[in-house]
Amino acid sequence: MTPCSASDLIPLATVDVLICAAAAVALVWGLIQFYVISTIPLRSNGDSATTSLTGASKGDTSEKLTEIYTAIYEGAESFLQAEYRICGLFVAGFGALIFFLISWGTKTSDGWDFTRGGYTTLSFILGAVTSMISGYLGMKVAVYSNVRTTISAQKAGWTACFNTAFRAGAVMGFVLCGLGLIVLFITLNIIKGEYGDDWETMCDCITGYGLGGSCIAMFGRVGGGIYTKAADVGADLVGKVVHGIPEDDPRNPATIADNVGDNVGDVAGMGSDLFGSFAEATCAALVIGSGAIDSSSDGAWDALLFPVAVSAVGIFVCLICSFIATDIMPVKKETDVELALKTQLISTTLIMLPAVYIIATVLLPDGNDTVKIIGVAVTHDVKPWSAFVCVGAGAVGGLIIGLITEYYTSHSYAPVREVADSCKTGAATNMIYGIALGYKSAVIPVIVLSGVIYASFSLLDLYGVSLAAIGMLSNLATGLTIDVYGPVCDNAGGIAEMAELEPGVREKTDALDAAGNTTAAIGKGFAIGSAALVSLALFGAFVIRIQTLSENTVFPQGSGVNMLEPLTFAFLIIGGMIPFWFAAMTMKSVGLAAMEMVMEVSRQFDEKPHLLDEHPTERPDYDACIQISTVASLREMIAPGAMVMFTPLLTGTFFGVQAVAGLLVGSLIASVQLAISMSNSGGAWDNAKKYIERASPESDLKGKGSDVHKAAVVGDTVGDPFKDTSGPALNIVMKLMAVLSLVFADYFWQVNDGTGVFGV
Amino acid sequence: MTPCSASDLIPLATVDVLICAAAAVALVWGLIQFYVISTIPLRSNGDSATTSLTGASKGDTSEKLTEIYTAIYEGAESFLQAEYRICGLFVAGFGALIFFLISWGTKTSDGWDFTRGGYTTLSFILGAVTSMISGYLGMKVAVYSNVRTTISAQKAGWTACFNTAFRAGAVMGFVLCGLGLIVLFITLNIIKGEYGDDWETMCDCITGYGLGGSCIAMFGRVGGGIYTKAADVGADLVGKVVHGIPEDDPRNPATIADNVGDNVGDVAGMGSDLFGSFAEATCAALVIGSGAIDSSSDGAWDALLFPVAVSAVGIFVCLICSFIATDIMPVKKETDVELALKTQLISTTLIMLPAVYIIATVLLPDGNDTVKIIGVAVTHDVKPWSAFVCVGAGAVGGLIIGLITEYYTSHSYAPVREVADSCKTGAATNMIYGIALGYKSAVIPVIVLSGVIYASFSLLDLYGVSLAAIGMLSNLATGLTIDVYGPVCDNAGGIAEMAELEPGVREKTDALDAAGNTTAAIGKGFAIGSAALVSLALFGAFVIRIQTLSENTVFPQGSGVNMLEPLTFAFLIIGGMIPFWFAAMTMKSVGLAAMEMVMEVSRQFDEKPHLLDEHPTERPDYDACIQISTVASLREMIAPGAMVMFTPLLTGTFFGVQAVAGLLVGSLIASVQLAISMSNSGGAWDNAKKYIERASPESDLKGKGSDVHKAAVVGDTVGDPFKDTSGPALNIVMKLMAVLSLVFADYFWQVNDGTGVFGV
Repeated sequence: MTPCSASDLIPLATVDVLICAAAAVALVWGLIQFYVISTIPLRSNGDSATTSLTGASKGDTSEKLTEIYTAIYEGAESFLQAEYRICGLFVAGFGALIFFLISWGTKTSDGWDFTRGGYTTLSFILGAVTSMISGYLGMKVAVYSNVRTTISAQKAGWTACFNTAFRAGAVMGFVLCGLGLIVLFITLNIIKGEYGDDWETMCDCITGYGLGGSCIAMFGRVGGGIYTKAADVGADLVGKVVHGIPEDDPRNPATIADNVGDNVGDVAGMGSDLFGSFAEATCAALVIGSGAIDSSSDGAWDALLFPVAVSAVGIFVCLICSFIATDIMPVKKETDVELALKTQLISTTLIMLPAVYIIATVLLPDGNDTVKIIGVAVTHDVKPWSAFVCVGAGAVGGLIIGLITEYYTSHSYAPVREVADSCKTGAATNMIYGIALGYKSAVIPVIVLSGVIYASFSLLDLYGVSLAAIGMLSNLATGLTIDVYGPVCDNAGGIAEMAELEPGVREKTDALDAAGNTTAAIGKGFAIGSAALVSLALFGAFVIRIQTLSENTVFPQGSGVNMLEPLTFAFLIIGGMIPFWFAAMTMKSVGLAAMEMVMEVSRQFDEKPHLLDEHPTERPDYDACIQISTVASLREMIAPGAMVMFTPLLTGTFFGVQAVAGLLVGSLIASVQLAISMSNSGGAWDNAKKYIERASPESDLKGKGSDVHKAAVVGDTVGDPFKDTSGPALNIVMKLMAVLSLVFADYFWQVNDGTGVFGV
Repeated sequence: MTPCSASDLIPLATVDVLICAAAAVALVWGLIQFYVISTIPLRSNGDSATTSLTGASKGDTSEKLTEIYTAIYEGAESFLQAEYRICGLFVAGFGALIFFLISWGTKTSDGWDFTRGGYTTLSFILGAVTSMISGYLGMKVAVYSNVRTTISAQKAGWTACFNTAFRAGAVMGFVLCGLGLIVLFITLNIIKGEYGDDWETMCDCITGYGLGGSCIAMFGRVGGGIYTKAADVGADLVGKVVHGIPEDDPRNPATIADNVGDNVGDVAGMGSDLFGSFAEATCAALVIGSGAIDSSSDGAWDALLFPVAVSAVGIFVCLICSFIATDIMPVKKETDVELALKTQLISTTLIMLPAVYIIATVLLPDGNDTVKIIGVAVTHDVKPWSAFVCVGAGAVGGLIIGLITEYYTSHSYAPVREVADSCKTGAATNMIYGIALGYKSAVIPVIVLSGVIYASFSLLDLYGVSLAAIGMLSNLATGLTIDVYGPVCDNAGGIAEMAELEPGVREKTDALDAAGNTTAAIGKGFAIGSAALVSLALFGAFVIRIQTLSENTVFPQGSGVNMLEPLTFAFLIIGGMIPFWFAAMTMKSVGLAAMEMVMEVSRQFDEKPHLLDEHPTERPDYDACIQISTVASLREMIAPGAMVMFTPLLTGTFFGVQAVAGLLVGSLIASVQLAISMSNSGGAWDNAKKYIERASPESDLKGKGSDVHKAAVVGDTVGDPFKDTSGPALNIVMKLMAVLSLVFADYFWQVNDGTGVFGV
C-alpha cells in the first residue's frame, strides 16, 4: 500500500494540537467575556459613563439591588451546595458500584480486571465533577450578570443591556465547551497511557465520562427543574390567580425563590444537561469509532479523533460568529433582538459546513487507502465527503428542527395565535388546543430526524449516526450562550421589578426575554434531536459490544436485533412506558411542591395582613419559600433519577441483553415524541399568554387581567413543568439509559452469557 | 403414526356446529332481551303495573318524553345515515382499490389474480357492512331503550331501571357477537368453496373482513367521537361555565345534540370499534394459524377454527353469567350497581377459564400426534394446555388491566381523590395532576401486557399472541353489554332532566351512570390491551407473509426483523409519531367543533333573550346544533381516517416492507401508552368532578358551584376528547394500520420485491 493520503503531510499531533488550542481559546474567551461584565459597577455612581434613563441613580436603588442580588446568590449557592452534596454521595456510591460491576464484568481467566474497573470509574468521576463544575460556574456567572444586566438596562439604548446578557451566556457557553473538551482529552490520554494501542478498551473506559456527565445532568435537570417550577407555579397560583399581584412583586414571598430557580434550573441544570449531551455524543463516536475503525489503517488516530475535532472547530466558528451579535450588527432597537439571536444560530450552522469539510479533508484520508468502518452489516469507507455529509446532515437537521420549533412556539405565527384565540372560550379549550399543538409539532421534526438517521446510517452505519449527533451539537457554544441569555434577562427583569425601578427597565428586559424564549425553544429542538441521535448511536455501540462479546452469536452481524423476539418485544413496550412514567413523576413533583409553596405563601399573607399593602410595613419571609423549594426538589429528584438509572441495570441483570435492547429502543421512540410535544406545548402556552397580554382591552383577546388572560394563565402554568421540568429531562432519560447500558455491557454479558439471572 | 388424538372421537363438523349454535343463540337471546324492553310502554297509563314515585304520571310528561325521544331518534338516524352514506362511498372506492391492488399484487405468470382480489374485496365489503349494521342496530336499541329506562326509573326500587338499561346493553352485546360470528363463518365457507384445502389463500382473503370492520370502526369512532364531544364540550362551556345552567337543561340548545352524541358516539361508534377488534383478532389467528398449522396434521381444521370456537363458547358463558345481574343477584339498592357490573366481568372471565380448557382438550389433539405451529424461529407443538395458557393469559391479563384502570379512574380510590384535591389550587394543578395520573396509570397495564405477550409468544409464537387477543376478547358480549349500559343510563338521565321529571329520577339514573362510568373504564382497558395484542399478531402475520413471499430472504426465519436497519429504524420513530399526530388532529377537531357549537348557542341566547327565563316563552333551535355537530364531525373525520389508512399504504408503496415493519411497531408502542393514558386521564377528571359535586359545601372540596368545582369542570371538559374521542380511537389506529399492511402484503411485495418505488 502506498501511503498516499493527505494525513501524510500532517504530523499525527495535528488533531491533538487543534483540540488543545480550541479548549484554551474557549477558556480564555470565556474569561475575557467575564471581565467585560465585571467592569459594570454594581453601585452606580453619579459619574457612571452614560446617563441613566431618568438620571436618578439613587444610592437607595443600589442598596436594594445589592440586597436582592445577595438574597438570590445565597439561595442559589445554598441549593447547589445541598444538591451537589447529594450528587457527591451518589457519585461515591455509584462509582463504587461501577468499579465493582465493571471489574467483575470484564474479568478474565486472570481474575477481576481492576484496571478496567478503575479507569472506567475514574472517567465516571471526572465526567461527574466536570458536569458539577459546569453547572456551578454557570449559576455563578448568571447570578453575577443578572443584576448587571438590570443596571445596563437603566442606560439608554439596547446595545449595552443586550450585550451584557449575551456575554453572560457566552461565558457559560465557551467555558463549558472548553472544559468539556480539555478534561475529556486529558482523561483519554491518561487511559491511553495504560492501554496504548488498544483503543477499543481505552474507549470502553472513556464511556464512564459520558455516564458521569449524564447522571449529574439528570439530577441537575430534575432537581433544578422542580425547584424553579415549584417556585414559579406556586408564585403564579397565589400571586396572580388568587391575589392579583404581578409576578416578581417584592411583596410575594415566593419571588426570590422563583428567581433563584431560574439560575439553578434554567442555567445550572441546563448546563449540566448540554455538557452531558456533548460528553455522550463524543463517547458514542469514540466507542463506535474505536471498534469500527481499522486501527491499522493509515491516519486511523486522526479519524478516531475526528468527532472531537469537529467540536473543537465548532468553538472557533461560534467565537467568530459571536462578534456578529455584539459588534458587527449590534442590537440597536427591540426588533433587532430576535434577529440577532437567530442570526447566531443560522450563521454558526452555515459556517460550520465548510469548516467541517475542510477538517474532514485534512484529517481523513481519501483515495484508495481509506479508513474502514466495520458496520453492523457491511463495511463502509470513511471518505471525507461521507463524514462531511453525516456531520452536515446533523447540523442542518438540527437547524430545521429548531426553526420548526420556533414556528410552533413563537406568537409571530399561526399555531400560537390559534391557541391564544382558543382562550376566548376558556381554559379548557386552551388546554385542548395547546396539547394538540404539542403533539402536532412533533410531526416534521420527527420526519427530519428520521431523514438524518436514514442518511447517516446508510452512509457510515452507526458511526455516521454518531457523527450526525456531533454535527447537531457542533455549535453548542452558541446554543448555550442563547440558552443562558434567556434566564439572565428573565432574572434581570425580576430584579428590576423587585427593586422597583422605573417601568421602562422592566419593559426592556421583558422584550429581551421574549426573544430569548423563542430562541430557547429552538435550542430545545437541537437538544432533543441530538439526544435522539446520541441515544441511537449509544444503543448501536451497545449492540456492537454485545456482538463482540458473544462472538457474533447474539445480535449477529447481518441479522442484527430482532424485534420479534418475545423478550425484546415485551421490553419494547415497557421501554415505551418509561418516559410516560418519568413525566408523570416529575410533573406530579412540581404540582406537589407548588402546592406546598402556595400554602406557605397563603400562610404568610394570613399571618402578615399588611404584607399586601401599597407600602407594606411587614417584610415577607423569602427564606421559608426558598427552603420549601430546596427541600421539595431534593426530595423529589431521587425517585425519577433512580428509576431511569436502575431500570436498565435491573433489566440487564435479570432479563439479559435482549430485554435491554427492547427497553432502549422503546424508550427512545416514546421519549422523542413526548419531549418535543411537551416542550412545545409549554412554549406555546407561555407565548400565547404573552400575546394576549400585549393585546389591547378593546381587541378580541381583551388583554391583561381579562377572562381570556386568566384562561391563558392556566395554560402557562400547566406548561411550566411541561417545558422546563419533564420535557427537557426526557432528553436525559433516553441518553442516560443508553450510556448506562453501554457502560455495563460487559457486566450484562457476564451474567449467564447475557441472558440475565433468570436465564430466559 | 397411530391416530390417537381426542379429535378422532369427534366428527369434524363439531366445531362448525358449535359456532353456528353460538351465533344462533346469541341472536335469539338478543331478540328476547329486546322483546322484554319493548314491553315497557312509552305512554305510562294509570294502570301501569307498579306505582310511580310520585304517583303522578301525567299525560303531559308522556308527551314530553315522546317529543324528546323523537328528537333524539331523528337526530341520531339522520347523522348515521349521513355518516354511512360517506362510509358507503368510501367502501366502494376503497373496495375498488383493494380489488385492483390485490389482483395485481397476487398476479402470477397467468396474469392478474382476479379471484383472489374479488374474494378479498368481498370479505372487505361484508366486514364493512356488518360493522355498519352493528353500529346502526346499537344506536336503534339504545335510543329505543333510553326513554324506557327513564320510565322504569320512575318506578320504585332499582331493579326495573337497572335491568332495562342492562338488557339494552345485552341486545347490542349478543346481537353483535352473533352477527360477527355468523357472517365470518359464512364468508369463510364461501371462500373455502373456491380454495378448498388451500387454507392459506383462504385466510389471506378473509383478512379483508377485518379490514372492512376496522375501516368503518375508524370512521364510526372518530366521527361519532367528534359528534358527541363537540356537543358535550360545547354544551358544557356555554351552559355550565358561561350561563350557569345545568347540563341537559332543556333551555340549552345543544342538549339534544349532546344526547344524540351519546348514541352515535358511545354506542354506535363503540359497537363498530369492538366488532373490529373481534374481526381482526379472529382474522389474525386464522391467518397465522393457516400458515403455521401443518394442514396435514390430524385435527388441523379443528385447530384452525379453535380461536373462533373460543369466541363461540364465550357467548354461552356471557349468557349464563348475565342471569347473575338480572335474576340471581338483582340490583336492589344503589351500592349493588357497581358490584353487579363488576361481578359480570369477573365471573365471565373466571368461568371462561375451565370452558376454554375443555374446548381446547376437545378440539386440539394431545399425545405425540400434535398440531405443529411453524413459528418465526422454531416449531412449537399446539397442546391443549399451551393453547389454554395463551387464551387464559389474555383473559386474566385483560381483567387485571381492567381492574387497574378502575383503580385509577374511580373516585373510590386515592388517585382520583388526589386529582380532586388538586382542584383546590385551581384548574392548572388539576390539569397537571390529571395528566400525570394518566401517564402513570399506563405503568402496570403495560407490564401486564408485556407479561402476556412474553408468555404467549414464548409458548406458541405469534399464534399464541393471537390466542391471547382472542382470550382477552372472549367475554366481549358482556363487555359490550356494560359499555352500552353506560350511555343508555346517561341518556336516560338527560331525558329525565329535559322532561323535567322529579329530581329522584335523575338521581337514580345518575347513580346508575356513575357505576357505568367506572365499568366503562374497565371495558376500555380490555379494548386497549386486546388492540395491542391484535396489532402484534397482525404484524406477525405480515412478517410471516413477507417471509413466505420472499422465500426467506426478507425477515428470514431465525433472524426476524432487524431494528438496526436504517430504514426500519427511521420508520420506527415515524411510527411512534403517528398516534400523536392522530390525537392532535382529533382533539383539535373536537375543540373546533365545540367552539362552533358555543358560537351557535351564544347566538341563540343573544337572539332569543327569553330562552333563559324560568319559564321560557321561546323554544331553542335544537336542529341548528344537531346540524353543526353533524357537519363538523363528518368533515373532521376524513383527515385522521385518511392519515391512518394511507400512511402504511404509501410507506409500503414508496419505501417497502422494511419501512412498514418499523412503522407498525413504532405506532404500536406509542399508541398503547397514549391510549391508556388519555382514556384514564379523562376518566379520572370526570370522576374527580363527580366526587367534588357530591362533597358538601362545608367540606374542603366545597361542592357544586364552588371555585373548586369550576376547576374540576375544566379538567372534565379537557378529558372529554381525551377519553371519548382520541383515546379510544387510538386502539383503532394500531389495529387498522396492522391489518391494512397485512391485506396489502402481497401488493407491497410486488413493488420492486418489497423495496418500494424508491427501491432503497
